[in-house]
Amino acid sequence: MEVSSRFSISARRMSRSIIRELLKLTRKKGLISFAGGLPHPSTFPSEELTGICSSILKEDAAMALQYSPTEGIPTLRESLRSFLKKRGFDASNKELIVTSASQQSLDLVSKIFVDRGDTIITENPSYLGALSAFRAYGGRFIAIDIDSEGLRTDVLEKELNELAKTAGTGSEYYQNMPKFIYTIPDFQNPAGVVMSYERRKKLLEIAERFDLLIVEDVPYRWLRYSGSEVPMLSSMDESGRVIGLFTFSKIFSPGIRLGWLTADERIMDKIVQAKQATDLCTSAFTQAIADKFIRSGLIDRRIEENISIYRKKLEVMLDSLEQYLPQDEGIEIYKTEGGLFLWLKLPEYIDTDEMFTEAIDRNVAYVIGSAFFPNGGGHNTMRLNFSFPSEEEIEEGIKRLGGLIRDRLS
Amino acid sequence: MEVSSRFSISARRMSRSIIRELLKLTRKKGLISFAGGLPHPSTFPSEELTGICSSILKEDAAMALQYSPTEGIPTLRESLRSFLKKRGFDASNKELIVTSASQQSLDLVSKIFVDRGDTIITENPSYLGALSAFRAYGGRFIAIDIDSEGLRTDVLEKELNELAKTAGTGSEYYQNMPKFIYTIPDFQNPAGVVMSYERRKKLLEIAERFDLLIVEDVPYRWLRYSGSEVPMLSSMDESGRVIGLFTFSKIFSPGIRLGWLTADERIMDKIVQAKQATDLCTSAFTQAIADKFIRSGLIDRRIEENISIYRKKLEVMLDSLEQYLPQDEGIEIYKTEGGLFLWLKLPEYIDTDEMFTEAIDRNVAYVIGSAFFPNGGGHNTMRLNFSFPSEEEIEEGIKRLGGLIRDRLS
Repeated sequence: MEVSSRFSISARRMSRSIIRELLKLTRKKGLISFAGGLPHPSTFPSEELTGICSSILKEDAAMALQYSPTEGIPTLRESLRSFLKKRGFDASNKELIVTSASQQSLDLVSKIFVDRGDTIITENPSYLGALSAFRAYGGRFIAIDIDSEGLRTDVLEKELNELAKTAGTGSEYYQNMPKFIYTIPDFQNPAGVVMSYERRKKLLEIAERFDLLIVEDVPYRWLRYSGSEVPMLSSMDESGRVIGLFTFSKIFSPGIRLGWLTADERIMDKIVQAKQATDLCTSAFTQAIADKFIRSGLIDRRIEENISIYRKKLEVMLDSLEQYLPQDEGIEIYKTEGGLFLWLKLPEYIDTDEMFTEAIDRNVAYVIGSAFFPNGGGHNTMRLNFSFPSEEEIEEGIKRLGGLIRDRLS
Repeated sequence: MEVSSRFSISARRMSRSIIRELLKLTRKKGLISFAGGLPHPSTFPSEELTGICSSILKEDAAMALQYSPTEGIPTLRESLRSFLKKRGFDASNKELIVTSASQQSLDLVSKIFVDRGDTIITENPSYLGALSAFRAYGGRFIAIDIDSEGLRTDVLEKELNELAKTAGTGSEYYQNMPKFIYTIPDFQNPAGVVMSYERRKKLLEIAERFDLLIVEDVPYRWLRYSGSEVPMLSSMDESGRVIGLFTFSKIFSPGIRLGWLTADERIMDKIVQAKQATDLCTSAFTQAIADKFIRSGLIDRRIEENISIYRKKLEVMLDSLEQYLPQDEGIEIYKTEGGLFLWLKLPEYIDTDEMFTEAIDRNVAYVIGSAFFPNGGGHNTMRLNFSFPSEEEIEEGIKRLGGLIRDRLS
């Protein structure tokens, strides 16, 4: 039976995620992996959930085990609005939908905006999962460099000025200009940087001037270990052009697969229709769990505890890097104040893709930085995760990595 | 801010599901609705689930609350294979993936096969949710009539002979011919018919001859109240051309949003990649619940109990229809032996779309049959659900419906 000739254009272009394939290599006994992006299991509130599940099954089974509205169950949607309001984002002029975590939000956004050949602006580097979601609809990327203050809005502005020249007018303009700007402003994945307030203001100004949408993805925002918070683009947005992507994966549990999305009502209308065709609705049972977890105040305590666990791990990783990495050899460490990742830039002549196999031999793993560059590059970079390994493993793993890098320095 | 000009082609063509909009009207107090497709809450195993949740959270929280493989958790995939084997389908030469219920399976199948303008063969009428999923990727339909033995394979054959004449050869042929044949062979939605064994054999022969894929969707298969089972297309398939879609929604709970899909490994490879980009993975927590529900044998008992509950409701509906519907007036009732729905064909001159408003006035609701016809038609048909209303409601509702129809007869 012939198979491959039947596939859609997008299926023919799909390939297994590089990270996923590399992760398989890291399942070796004795290997210390900085390659994943997993929360630590000690942060999972299993005891609290036992009581919550019992109470839902006792009192609300007819709702929790039934089909539910595509938009999400009303009680959770209300809790999520309070959760956001408490954290400085009053979403009352936005619509809110519950999704099966952020990867689905990214899929839905792509589905309603992206046609084959459309351009999307991303940070350079950016989150691989988002790139896969956009690529599945045929999206192409304009990748804008970031620095320690986040997205280089000066570069973005120049790029847009160029694009606008040939974009035409009216509806043609909107089809030719980038469909949206995708940004992870807080503890960016993979680089860990936070977009400064000035840059955020500038980004909104630019979006206003060119009448563009912004997709703000904030999975790590509430995992801040030092420094002070910068307002969300969603809360600074006055014209409904920011779509906010939120998830429980890093502050509660990735295994319940829950996130939410806020957007202007005209955009939400299509998001809801797209979700109907995609999975009808998200599990009412897991939604009811999350609702009780928020209402009881457990989520606030959970976030505080996660912060204290991960803050310590980040310190251990930074200390270990200082101790075991050669100094003054052109190695750049992006010192993040939150999230799950540290980003390293090695001297140009060290190829981290090529070094990966040797890392596995030395029982340590990282994610090759090049995977995060939408249009190539970054072969001397790597991403290190500090949330999953233990403090001892972090120290030992960085020691191994330090040795490996040292041997490569010329 | 301009919004509509930014949407993708598929978003611009999306519209809110007709059924969903009609269902809103049925939320009226005192109204008896045959319009939904919901399992009855008395079939939800809430007590058993309390124990199952506690034990998962005690013993397997680190797995259940974490990210999990895109293919599904290994224990559940194993249980599902046993579940199928016990029911006559040995899936050992197929790959199996867990999905977030059948709507997601339909989305994934569309994503890997359907490009804008591609044709899909469906039954006429067919399941609206499937049509929406296919439409979202730009699929067009060739709808083949059904009769009491299911899909009219003679009509299908003629149609394919015509199509093959201009389809070209090689990879062009596969791009021009229908991407797959979508069928619900058991207790078809909406018509309730079962495809006969002879038709199934014939369908597989035709698919073989034209080298086509078949997507077999069996949400109601195990809800049989009388008569005897016909083998699944998936189990009769010898060349890997049948993709099987399965769900827990009607035999366990729709609220846990779990289904599974079986396919040839070359097809599965793309399904996995598509799911990666769509939602990374399905909830490990709900998967662990389903796994324990199967392993403990609870699923078998659940199915038996569902059958006894729904069998009774179907009998009440059939009796009521006999009692309250005018006889010998050209009203055709498709007497199903399972599933959740009865299908009615009224005389040609009665328009059920138009009659719907009056039904609501008389406090009874159905789904307008025309919604299920991919390319129009069916304005004298309706679908009646018997799983959700109580036996008393069924009798009273059919009485109201009978009065309404009687008044329309000329």
